[in-house]
Amino acid sequence: MSRFASSRLALLTPYAPGEQPQDKKYVKLNTNEAFFRPCPGVFAQVGEIAERLRLYCDPEAKALTRAVAESLGVREENVLMTNGSDEALAFAFMAFCDGDTGVRFPDVTYGFYPVFAALFGVKARQIPLGGDFRIRPEDYCGGSGTVVIANPNAQTGIALSRTEVEKIIKANPGNVVIVDEAYVDFGAESCLPLIDKYDNLLIVRTMSKSGALAGARIGCCLGCRELIADVKTVKYSFNPYNVGTMAQAAGAAAAADAAYYAEKTGQVRENRAELCKGLEALGMEYLPSLANFVLARAKGVPGEKLYSMLKERGVLVRHFGGRIEDFVRITVGSREEVAFLLACLKEILS
Amino acid sequence: MSRFASSRLALLTPYAPGEQPQDKKYVKLNTNEAFFRPCPGVFAQVGEIAERLRLYCDPEAKALTRAVAESLGVREENVLMTNGSDEALAFAFMAFCDGDTGVRFPDVTYGFYPVFAALFGVKARQIPLGGDFRIRPEDYCGGSGTVVIANPNAQTGIALSRTEVEKIIKANPGNVVIVDEAYVDFGAESCLPLIDKYDNLLIVRTMSKSGALAGARIGCCLGCRELIADVKTVKYSFNPYNVGTMAQAAGAAAAADAAYYAEKTGQVRENRAELCKGLEALGMEYLPSLANFVLARAKGVPGEKLYSMLKERGVLVRHFGGRIEDFVRITVGSREEVAFLLACLKEILS
Repeated sequence: MSRFASSRLALLTPYAPGEQPQDKKYVKLNTNEAFFRPCPGVFAQVGEIAERLRLYCDPEAKALTRAVAESLGVREENVLMTNGSDEALAFAFMAFCDGDTGVRFPDVTYGFYPVFAALFGVKARQIPLGGDFRIRPEDYCGGSGTVVIANPNAQTGIALSRTEVEKIIKANPGNVVIVDEAYVDFGAESCLPLIDKYDNLLIVRTMSKSGALAGARIGCCLGCRELIADVKTVKYSFNPYNVGTMAQAAGAAAAADAAYYAEKTGQVRENRAELCKGLEALGMEYLPSLANFVLARAKGVPGEKLYSMLKERGVLVRHFGGRIEDFVRITVGSREEVAFLLACLKEILS
Repeated sequence: MSRFASSRLALLTPYAPGEQPQDKKYVKLNTNEAFFRPCPGVFAQVGEIAERLRLYCDPEAKALTRAVAESLGVREENVLMTNGSDEALAFAFMAFCDGDTGVRFPDVTYGFYPVFAALFGVKARQIPLGGDFRIRPEDYCGGSGTVVIANPNAQTGIALSRTEVEKIIKANPGNVVIVDEAYVDFGAESCLPLIDKYDNLLIVRTMSKSGALAGARIGCCLGCRELIADVKTVKYSFNPYNVGTMAQAAGAAAAADAAYYAEKTGQVRENRAELCKGLEALGMEYLPSLANFVLARAKGVPGEKLYSMLKERGVLVRHFGGRIEDFVRITVGSREEVAFLLACLKEILS
């Protein structure tokens, strides 16, 4: 257990899944799997990988973990794969927050953080962004409780530099700092080079955005061996087989093709620039995003109205309440989608 | 909220995922999905379904839920799909147990129940099986705290009749009774016909055993609308997209092919009878299982030794400690696997 582990971890003896040995071929009568294949309809849906589904997936997700570790230049002990990054965050909340150790995060960020806090009975403190919708690192320096920062931040798309996040990590030697890098591949600086330097840094990633695998549910935690071991304790006490065989296979394939994704995230940056140029030409205001979305508003048209008028025209964007209720959040689409969105906005605003 | 909901549910406002409308085709710029497909390697692994992975899966898993509801003859509101039945159980513990509401289950059963109790800070009471390794229904009648019964019971394979489980349900009007029916399709009586009659009955199922889909991770909760709504609140506060696109597709296909699985579970029963006949011929003792495994012991050979000697011969079975340390648990394999196992046992015991 790391020195940051929540009180619930101390008494925990995780479940031990049955052996899934890889050393040789066994007559496998130890985990109550079927000796027959899934029905033909399953093969029709997912192809030949159906042949592998009668057996449990590898609870350690070794091949996927290795592929992700290699692609990121870290060791396997620094990686824990999860059923999407929401599960990674849930595990991290369970591992590093409890009745005594609260949590702090910005008032405008991923809307799930307060939900996790409520679910696990953790006291949450929401720290207002600056007037420019930026996270002020100094607001997170000192104090107690786990820190959760999305970088780039959710909803705003604004990123801190690695140096700024490091300042927060350094100023919290007694607290875990969770950096949610769901959107980092679209241009921000990752804190990954810092995991060997700080024992209180836990990074959360997902293949849902830059990996084009939202429907496969693949996320992960990255950090020093001790923090990852704590999150693993939670995983093996919650759902040892959390990442299925198909997701493991899809994720490993994606992790192995850096060139493909570098090209695609490059296109996202180009299209984001197009989108921003277009918004500017329409006189709209937007926040400087390094994510695959842009938060934008039009003078005189409330965010909710803009959302509805776009929906009428066949474009779905997202509208949030609270401090960003004037805005809509627009995902960076393909060139054609960006052009169509801009044409719709032009019609609405003219 | 049902009258059984844990205290943590009262303050919970679940996360609202972005719209995934099915009414018409939108330019979808609302949930930060990629506009590009996954890399070719993903297609090589999982086939054409890769085309659907860039978008989030349906958080409601509507098609899968419908297929499961139809196959079981219940309404969709009675079903909540999960990432394997371990997640279903974890959600149920979060929904119906807390610091005040403890949990009761047999001393010999699925080893995960005490782990969930520890993880969520729930006081657990383990109730000894009878000397014949049977659950005694009267031990669960009256008293307080959520009841968890695996039927057939894990490790022993012994099933209660529906009438016996109903006795427990009826005698616990103030407590939720969770019936884990992971193994029910191999010959036991399901409590499914009782979900409309009792508002305190929650059934957990899995496609890992009889569905031959252990690697796909598909489980579910079944119960009255109110209990299911409580479990849904937990799901949407933990991982709204908990069942991925590939698992949804595979599960729906499996649920639609009752004939195939009836034939296969019939084979399991035949092979189980073969296995038991063989064990008897070898002078081994076994418990009367209605599951796809048999718990058996040989006089004079400790369970752990039997496990090791089988492993040396290329057969993996499972050994547990505690009250069943004399036994090994043998999954019912194919005819050939059963024959090979029996040949190995013969060699060991002669």
